[in-house]
Amino acid sequence: MFFTSAGMRFELTLLGTNSALPAFGRFPSSQALNIQENHYLIDCGEGAQIRMSEFGVRRSRIRQVFISHLHGDHVYGLAGFLSSLAMLGRQEPMEVFSPFGLEEAMRVLFKHTGGLSYPLNFHVIDPERHQLIFEDGHVEVYSLPLLHRVPASGFLFKEKERPRNMRPDKIEAYNIHYRHIPAIKAGADFELADGARVPNEELTIPPPPPRSYAYCSDTAFNERLVSMIEGVNLLYHESTFCEDMREHAALTGHSTARQAATIAKLAGAGRLILGHYSSRYQDLGRFLKEAREVFPDTELGIDGKVFEAPLEKKV
Amino acid sequence: MFFTSAGMRFELTLLGTNSALPAFGRFPSSQALNIQENHYLIDCGEGAQIRMSEFGVRRSRIRQVFISHLHGDHVYGLAGFLSSLAMLGRQEPMEVFSPFGLEEAMRVLFKHTGGLSYPLNFHVIDPERHQLIFEDGHVEVYSLPLLHRVPASGFLFKEKERPRNMRPDKIEAYNIHYRHIPAIKAGADFELADGARVPNEELTIPPPPPRSYAYCSDTAFNERLVSMIEGVNLLYHESTFCEDMREHAALTGHSTARQAATIAKLAGAGRLILGHYSSRYQDLGRFLKEAREVFPDTELGIDGKVFEAPLEKKV
Repeated sequence: MFFTSAGMRFELTLLGTNSALPAFGRFPSSQALNIQENHYLIDCGEGAQIRMSEFGVRRSRIRQVFISHLHGDHVYGLAGFLSSLAMLGRQEPMEVFSPFGLEEAMRVLFKHTGGLSYPLNFHVIDPERHQLIFEDGHVEVYSLPLLHRVPASGFLFKEKERPRNMRPDKIEAYNIHYRHIPAIKAGADFELADGARVPNEELTIPPPPPRSYAYCSDTAFNERLVSMIEGVNLLYHESTFCEDMREHAALTGHSTARQAATIAKLAGAGRLILGHYSSRYQDLGRFLKEAREVFPDTELGIDGKVFEAPLEKKV
Repeated sequence: MFFTSAGMRFELTLLGTNSALPAFGRFPSSQALNIQENHYLIDCGEGAQIRMSEFGVRRSRIRQVFISHLHGDHVYGLAGFLSSLAMLGRQEPMEVFSPFGLEEAMRVLFKHTGGLSYPLNFHVIDPERHQLIFEDGHVEVYSLPLLHRVPASGFLFKEKERPRNMRPDKIEAYNIHYRHIPAIKAGADFELADGARVPNEELTIPPPPPRSYAYCSDTAFNERLVSMIEGVNLLYHESTFCEDMREHAALTGHSTARQAATIAKLAGAGRLILGHYSSRYQDLGRFLKEAREVFPDTELGIDGKVFEAPLEKKV
């Protein structure tokens, strides 16, 4: 059984799905990820803030930005996005995670174009390592080493394990006061008035399994990713080219749609989303066809499309 | 009588007409000016290159960029525009004119995000002075001191005087060989076989009057502009606000629609184009109404709209 309520959302909005040169109405790379109303921005190509207004992404809610690498099509929208937040009066700090160099570029730019109204904190990530780079109460974010022409890191977002769920029928049956509930949800047994213990397993059900999302762009075909993203619910894997350009893809540090599908299949992903299309392709049908031959649960990433990972409720 | 052929064009394409925060489908400031197939870019807000593809502006033809001031909404599209040209294999140099600071900001950004394939030359303009800052075979460009919160310069584009036009009937009447025509167009008389002279005024007609375009954004109401742009054919004057925000306009270094119209009227402009609208206004009808009360030949600047200054042929 699946359900999603606002507080349970795990929702990815694609803001831009084209590669280097914006074309055919496709903007450069950017995505907004909403996990339980915590909002994260992944890459910030030119026009990302314009897409946010168009697609109803509440930009002021974003507190962390994750930049995969310092090619312009992944980062030239950052200054505009950050400046607009300042114009809207933001006070809250913004945390930016990226490979080395972004801080100097942004600070010099803002020196000349005007400062921000809030603290901007940069965190350098090591694109050679797969490690925890950020966590909050709901999520852990891991870097994913990619194979590109410049240092590049993907990102794996993993929901944290939730507490167990209380069974409403048992609250009634044992007349459990609400003050005991947090302890029971955390795993405690319940002691009845006569001293008998009701074991936790009888009172609770396990929480829904945590959901996960992996962003892998830009990268050549890289089997090392497979073990790092095993069983991921949603996988965005770049497919700059189709198989007709397989050699060119390898030379430029990119993947074909078939290669993206191969990674999804090997990793046992729940669903694959394609994107980062080269401007040489107007029609995207062949990307989908090529990938689905290897991994049927593939969808085309399109600007404005929203993908959800529903919560799987164990009953 | 008016006519316009491709080689005679004087055509302004609006790429973005909103102020700081992009909103309601309006991008930040940017314009492409085509004067006799010479292409100039004026300001380059975020998404300018995306608008160029949408509106059919041939970006590779642009050789000069004029940046009015270093606020993000006038310059955050520059890195993307310049990078895309490099990806398209440009070799030809690009000249960028702006107040001080842009060169350092762009060079540090490109240091981290990758270099360009062509020479990028920066020219610092003095926003306090009204002077010639660029000329080529067809046009002269003058700076226009503006009143803003940071150093800001408008731009006046003036076509150069053309040579006089040969009268076809006179070529036939006097049997004039084509090798004499350039000299006659430049002003020479023609000597007949019997030694008699036909005066130039009989052989030629005066050229069409040169056309002009003035870009005034961002600025508070500034009567000093009037004498500098007197008789301009097309005037773009910012109108960030309507009269309801007149005081706020002055405080922030901006103008109201009525003030823009007042400048147009005092300068005897041919036509006024409004733009740089604040995101607090979704409906632009009141801008137009307010301005037309003062200056009837006013049009709303809208992303994608094209304005022409037709060639006035004297017959």
